[in-house]
Amino acid sequence: MQAEIITIGDEILIGQTIDSNSAWIAGELNKAGIRVSRINSIADEASAINAGLDESLGRVDLVLMTGGLGPTADDITKKTLADYFGMPLVMNEEVLADIRGFFDRIGKPMLEMNEQQAMLPAGAHIVRNRKGTASGMWFEKEGKVLISMPGVPYEMVHLMESGFMDMIESRFRRGHVFHRTVMTFGQGESFIADTVKDWEAGLASTGVKLAYLPSPGIVKMRLSAFGDDSEELERKVMDQAIALERLIPDIVYGYDDETLEAVVAGLLKEKGKTISAAESCTGGYISHLLTSIPGSSDYLEGGLCTYSYASKTELLGVDSEIIKEKGAVSEEVVIAMAEGCRKLYQTDIAIAVSGIAGPSGGTPDKPVGTVWMAVAHEDGMFTHCFHFGRDRMRNIRMTALHALNEVRRILLARG
Amino acid sequence: MQAEIITIGDEILIGQTIDSNSAWIAGELNKAGIRVSRINSIADEASAINAGLDESLGRVDLVLMTGGLGPTADDITKKTLADYFGMPLVMNEEVLADIRGFFDRIGKPMLEMNEQQAMLPAGAHIVRNRKGTASGMWFEKEGKVLISMPGVPYEMVHLMESGFMDMIESRFRRGHVFHRTVMTFGQGESFIADTVKDWEAGLASTGVKLAYLPSPGIVKMRLSAFGDDSEELERKVMDQAIALERLIPDIVYGYDDETLEAVVAGLLKEKGKTISAAESCTGGYISHLLTSIPGSSDYLEGGLCTYSYASKTELLGVDSEIIKEKGAVSEEVVIAMAEGCRKLYQTDIAIAVSGIAGPSGGTPDKPVGTVWMAVAHEDGMFTHCFHFGRDRMRNIRMTALHALNEVRRILLARG
Repeated sequence: MQAEIITIGDEILIGQTIDSNSAWIAGELNKAGIRVSRINSIADEASAINAGLDESLGRVDLVLMTGGLGPTADDITKKTLADYFGMPLVMNEEVLADIRGFFDRIGKPMLEMNEQQAMLPAGAHIVRNRKGTASGMWFEKEGKVLISMPGVPYEMVHLMESGFMDMIESRFRRGHVFHRTVMTFGQGESFIADTVKDWEAGLASTGVKLAYLPSPGIVKMRLSAFGDDSEELERKVMDQAIALERLIPDIVYGYDDETLEAVVAGLLKEKGKTISAAESCTGGYISHLLTSIPGSSDYLEGGLCTYSYASKTELLGVDSEIIKEKGAVSEEVVIAMAEGCRKLYQTDIAIAVSGIAGPSGGTPDKPVGTVWMAVAHEDGMFTHCFHFGRDRMRNIRMTALHALNEVRRILLARG
Repeated sequence: MQAEIITIGDEILIGQTIDSNSAWIAGELNKAGIRVSRINSIADEASAINAGLDESLGRVDLVLMTGGLGPTADDITKKTLADYFGMPLVMNEEVLADIRGFFDRIGKPMLEMNEQQAMLPAGAHIVRNRKGTASGMWFEKEGKVLISMPGVPYEMVHLMESGFMDMIESRFRRGHVFHRTVMTFGQGESFIADTVKDWEAGLASTGVKLAYLPSPGIVKMRLSAFGDDSEELERKVMDQAIALERLIPDIVYGYDDETLEAVVAGLLKEKGKTISAAESCTGGYISHLLTSIPGSSDYLEGGLCTYSYASKTELLGVDSEIIKEKGAVSEEVVIAMAEGCRKLYQTDIAIAVSGIAGPSGGTPDKPVGTVWMAVAHEDGMFTHCFHFGRDRMRNIRMTALHALNEVRRILLARG
């Protein structure tokens, strides 16, 4: 079973908005054993929408469309769809009541253009939207299904979860898919591929597919199998995942899109340990990652963004002579920061980082991208100097990921 | 002049990766007056690639393709393209030397599969990749151009900036485009549309197009015009942007994709003011946003992630009796946090937030999404209680944006 996704909106085509909806929809369909064979982003124009519908409905039986349903005048999708499927727009009183209720709840007046959003194609199955004013629509024609949803991500997710996924599964679900993604940190794609090449060569005969999904610092290795027997699929994919992990045990940090911060959070909770962070070049990003996980108050005592010299010396007790002598970006300073942070917050583990995130601020002996890191813990002190590149946001993110990975290793080493 | 983008890779179609490359490419082409009419994400299979090429090259004269050029066995794009354009793969000695140099620089051994990346289609124009091992390729056939680039974002950006954009402009540039995006914060799309509806109705006759681009908290209003006379385009778009801003002056915070943090950073630098933040529910995200801007050490003295009670009382001097009596999420506590933070860091402005980010931790009188905010400044203290929703990351982000917006208003009010 294959499906296509169509996203509508000039904002994607001029590059002002990144299409995150399609990835989410594709992931959900995949779990249901439906493979997305194409994603198409097209213009907010009737001719482009009609052509896109003809093509996609010509290739597959299920097409999901997002975008173009806002109340403002630049959205023409609903009218175009009604014409395409030959359905007149009629007032839907239930939806009108929903929209009235929505504006009551947010305490704002309902406008004429919002009322128009209750004009819906007669004959389309409507999925009501509790988080916004644009309804979900399910059109059928000659055995093919088109679903139209608003482009606001949390409204789209709400409509999929509260209605469309069930309708899709009961209508289309055939066959099964099983994925297992092995998450690695710290080695490049080609280095990993060389390490596992004999195993990978033997993979074809097992019916399990492998894909490498690299991003800065992290390579996801996705194992997939499609077929009818869901238990057999799971067994053969998991067997290969175990075989893979035996080849690269040091770099595997988790599975199935787990983030490093989620893995570290899980280990901290499991082992009953606490953590704090003193961040110079990362400016709060490590604390942000750690607090992005629900329940983070169980293990995070606090964090400091120590941008100024004074905040290093006064709050963390770093000796100002050391900063003068060695510079703020030095092993001695991050050690003192980590010790000071661990003492201040009374935590089991404390991270400290100091570096030159860029684009300016580099010197010949400490160019942009130079980062010193220390992790103070019950058994000692880890330190390392990294040399990243010139991109500020990448340097911040790579520093944070390396810090989290070191915390992970320290927690695992204690058994 | 129209172009299409094709992204290759199962990782996009199964939803493990969001396609951010296409947005970047579309934005760059747009600046050069080239309109992206479609973005197509297709599978990493020869049949899908061939069909995608036939379709896109049938519709437009320029197609940009990303992905599928990695060294590992799952990437078949280069071979498929060479066959499609009838070009044999031959060893490119210059590129081979580049790849050798790349592995020397990163201090890792070059593998057989990396050497294979120097096998390139004879007849394609090659743009050398200084940031990775997959080359950029420019194919021509019957007046149509196909560009192939690796999917790693910073490698793709490097190839576009160091070669392909110049080649595209000299080959295809005709006509002009001018965009002006008015950035607003704090009002919904339909409320804005109602406020400006008379002006919007008159827009059609001017040749300027308007699009609303909503995201949580922010609505971007993009004005565009296409034509031959670049000065006339700019004049008529800017005239309308000024007319629009007069209708909604309170909510306009910037232009052309400026972020709130960049605007606040600019104002702090311009006025020579300093800032600090004490963050409970946002856990470092406000500091992270402020330090994401280059040169942030000019204005950010430091930040505290005050997750624990102790860090509120000991570091910020919040009276523990107040926390006991009023609760950590209260006006009294955020006022004391903001005052303590401003004193600790000796800054002109200090932000303090405390709330229940969720998904757990809510109570009947303080449900998930309740956030108290205080901003201490030279002329007084701003406080406000927000009621966001149940989504943790959205609550964190909305809180941070509201805090930055309040700082912006305070800085502007002082003139």
